[in-house]
Amino acid sequence: MSFTKVTVAGGGVLGSQIAFQTAFKGFDTTVWLRSEDSIKRARPKFERLRDIYLGILDNAKTNEKAPWPAGWGAKLDAAGIDALKEQVLKAYDNLKLTTSYEEAANVDFLIESIAEDPAQKTAFYQELAKYLPEHTVVATNSSTMIPSMFAEATGRPEKYLALHFANEIWSHNTGEVMGHAGTDQKYYDMVVEFAKQIGMIPLLLHKEQPGYILNSMLVPFLNASMSLWANDVADPETIDKTWMLGTGAPAGPFRILDIVGLTTAYNINAMQPDASDPTSMHAKIAAKLKTKIDAGELGINAGKGFYNYSK
Amino acid sequence: MSFTKVTVAGGGVLGSQIAFQTAFKGFDTTVWLRSEDSIKRARPKFERLRDIYLGILDNAKTNEKAPWPAGWGAKLDAAGIDALKEQVLKAYDNLKLTTSYEEAANVDFLIESIAEDPAQKTAFYQELAKYLPEHTVVATNSSTMIPSMFAEATGRPEKYLALHFANEIWSHNTGEVMGHAGTDQKYYDMVVEFAKQIGMIPLLLHKEQPGYILNSMLVPFLNASMSLWANDVADPETIDKTWMLGTGAPAGPFRILDIVGLTTAYNINAMQPDASDPTSMHAKIAAKLKTKIDAGELGINAGKGFYNYSK
Repeated sequence: MSFTKVTVAGGGVLGSQIAFQTAFKGFDTTVWLRSEDSIKRARPKFERLRDIYLGILDNAKTNEKAPWPAGWGAKLDAAGIDALKEQVLKAYDNLKLTTSYEEAANVDFLIESIAEDPAQKTAFYQELAKYLPEHTVVATNSSTMIPSMFAEATGRPEKYLALHFANEIWSHNTGEVMGHAGTDQKYYDMVVEFAKQIGMIPLLLHKEQPGYILNSMLVPFLNASMSLWANDVADPETIDKTWMLGTGAPAGPFRILDIVGLTTAYNINAMQPDASDPTSMHAKIAAKLKTKIDAGELGINAGKGFYNYSK
Repeated sequence: MSFTKVTVAGGGVLGSQIAFQTAFKGFDTTVWLRSEDSIKRARPKFERLRDIYLGILDNAKTNEKAPWPAGWGAKLDAAGIDALKEQVLKAYDNLKLTTSYEEAANVDFLIESIAEDPAQKTAFYQELAKYLPEHTVVATNSSTMIPSMFAEATGRPEKYLALHFANEIWSHNTGEVMGHAGTDQKYYDMVVEFAKQIGMIPLLLHKEQPGYILNSMLVPFLNASMSLWANDVADPETIDKTWMLGTGAPAGPFRILDIVGLTTAYNINAMQPDASDPTSMHAKIAAKLKTKIDAGELGINAGKGFYNYSK
């Protein structure tokens, strides 16, 4: 029992990547978007993904040492690469973009990847529920919320769970699979199987956990590191060097923060209940991060964060 | 201005390694031990270190790909290796083992690496202070205590600080350098210089911090990981895989715990103020660790921990 038709709701960074990878892996894929305007904004993202996939393939054809995305399976020879290029073009051509709930609902599996706003998600699920066929399984890609928050709104709590992706899913191919207390194991297993089919490594959670596995470790780790910096115990370079020497890791916490983005780290700290107390560690970290953010040092995407990335 | 004569107080795992590496790097090195019995127990440790060093050198001579300890400097050719073997033998022969405070004190730099017991450390420093020449700098290698706890007992707070080593210092060659509020920068700098001279990478702390840099990050990271396990969210293998895939690290938290040792992780959790409340996370983690410890699954040194290491 596996899925054939899949809808991804939402055309943001992750939504577009999930949809493109799903189509690339041969699924009949629909993207649901809120409005014609959203469709207009989503199109260039799919063009860009098509070009990224083609670029990687062209590169792999001429360069033995070129990176091969982990989410694509085994590395192929020139003929295989040409076949994959066909698949990329076909995926791009076949993607169906719609604003219709009815059309979006008419699939075996729907992945919700709309804005991280509980009210919007609830409203989306309630409207969707009117059109969903009995058998459709629904998953959320939410990073910051848990499925039990929306299970009732979907009208099918037993067929509802989370499938959580990482950015650049073609190479960071993890799929954290997490149900809520009412998820039926049968549908959980189907989603695990689907994750494998689209080239993800499924990471199984047996219980609901805010932050899933990775962020449940990453957030306290990064905060402990930022505490050392906010308390002027040591500078970011020294802290990173210590972590790398002590654990053999290729990057320390401040290098990771540059990838995560300082705004995200700021929001996590500023959101904490004790952040209004300026003597709390969360407030101290937020204040130091804000100085960098105000200076435009937002991380690797801005060319500068804790490290300098400009050429 | 640098040190010539050095004493290491304590012949435990770290004390013996620090003394041997210091002698190997050409310093006139004395080891202070509490009793003739302690001297008897320390001798085989130095023999073992001598044989480890010689073994690595012999291996490097015949095998191009053999590991070369980071704490030894640049890799040498066969002639250079023979010269280093001489240095190892000389280091072993020249190590002075003594129970005399007077003899131990008569140096430029003394590193205290005795038992992690505040009363024993205080008594040691107070007795030592009677014999220390004016110029002698003193450092503690304590992992769990901070220098301000003993600064007064040394009688020379301005010349007292911490220099913290990692196990197998010849290859894990970090030296965390940490003063207390009353440490004079001049002596701090001398200890940084000494750390370099014996092949360590000095990691500079600008303030006192329990746990230094590495453990200040490692403890919350490992506890966050163990919380996921203690709460039955995911199994250790999945958690490790998630960390490795998500951060590119060569090992996940449970692999690191096997190296740290489960008893140490247990003690850290059981020592927390809220560990007496069985519903606290520290208590839950301690209880799960205890089950493994009782089964003899103590970590890599026991052949089994979270992973199996027996052949």
